[in-house]
Amino acid sequence: MNTATARNTLRYLDDLCPGDRFESAEHALDIEQIIEFAERFDPQPFHLDEAAAGASFFGGLAASGWHTAALTMRLLVTSGLPIAGGLIGAGVEVSWLQPTRPDDVLRVCSEVLEVTPSRSRPERGIVTVRSETLNQRGEVLQRLVSRLVVPRRPQAA
Amino acid sequence: MNTATARNTLRYLDDLCPGDRFESAEHALDIEQIIEFAERFDPQPFHLDEAAAGASFFGGLAASGWHTAALTMRLLVTSGLPIAGGLIGAGVEVSWLQPTRPDDVLRVCSEVLEVTPSRSRPERGIVTVRSETLNQRGEVLQRLVSRLVVPRRPQAA
Repeated sequence: MNTATARNTLRYLDDLCPGDRFESAEHALDIEQIIEFAERFDPQPFHLDEAAAGASFFGGLAASGWHTAALTMRLLVTSGLPIAGGLIGAGVEVSWLQPTRPDDVLRVCSEVLEVTPSRSRPERGIVTVRSETLNQRGEVLQRLVSRLVVPRRPQAA
Repeated sequence: MNTATARNTLRYLDDLCPGDRFESAEHALDIEQIIEFAERFDPQPFHLDEAAAGASFFGGLAASGWHTAALTMRLLVTSGLPIAGGLIGAGVEVSWLQPTRPDDVLRVCSEVLEVTPSRSRPERGIVTVRSETLNQRGEVLQRLVSRLVVPRRPQAA
């Protein structure tokens, strides 16, 4: 998709309805990515070391939940959620339903839940979106519900 | 604090009460960290480029909310929340109250909200913790409420 096409398909608040669905491209994880993220942001044995992870709550190496969340954001920004003005979150709820494993191939399926124009700011509103991060077997690893700040379509002058 | 001391102070479910408070060490952010994280996980102009950020919703370069969240996790794991068995989240709510800026020095203040032994799993329970990420001026940038899986203190044989 070239930039012109991508720009044409960006959604403003006015373009979004509950039930609208979007699906991202894929991201293939591996052990190196999991360990590198964990060393920087979540240095716990079950994210860093296969032997230690085997004896842990996770029963094997698992990605940090924050790594799954960050990769989900990457997929949403680059292909999964074409919102005008970008993806600006006011707040989120995240549930980690299953561990993310080194051989997982992630993709994100999103559905618009609610569209609420702002009362005080006529130029924007809040869109609530549920984004499920799935692996290659269709298992839901993470469920994210985001409240996004989305601009209204500019009026013609 | 040496490792032996740190181990001695790790809290099991039985040791935690609503109102218990913990404070982390500090982490100094800078432009390079913000851009590096954004390139990998949240490649949007207002996280990547000062000029573009100045004209955006944020009015200046801002860290990805997921970067603030990941740094919060690092501070919690390394100094901010001494839980036996590590920090294992079942789910979280995150609110981003103010943008995180390149010159911010972050620290995390946590308070235990609720301690709930599991009915089905006698060896563990859920602890709900609110963690506020503050900058050097004491402004709350992010509020995180986590449901953590925490083991009970092992019984003497």
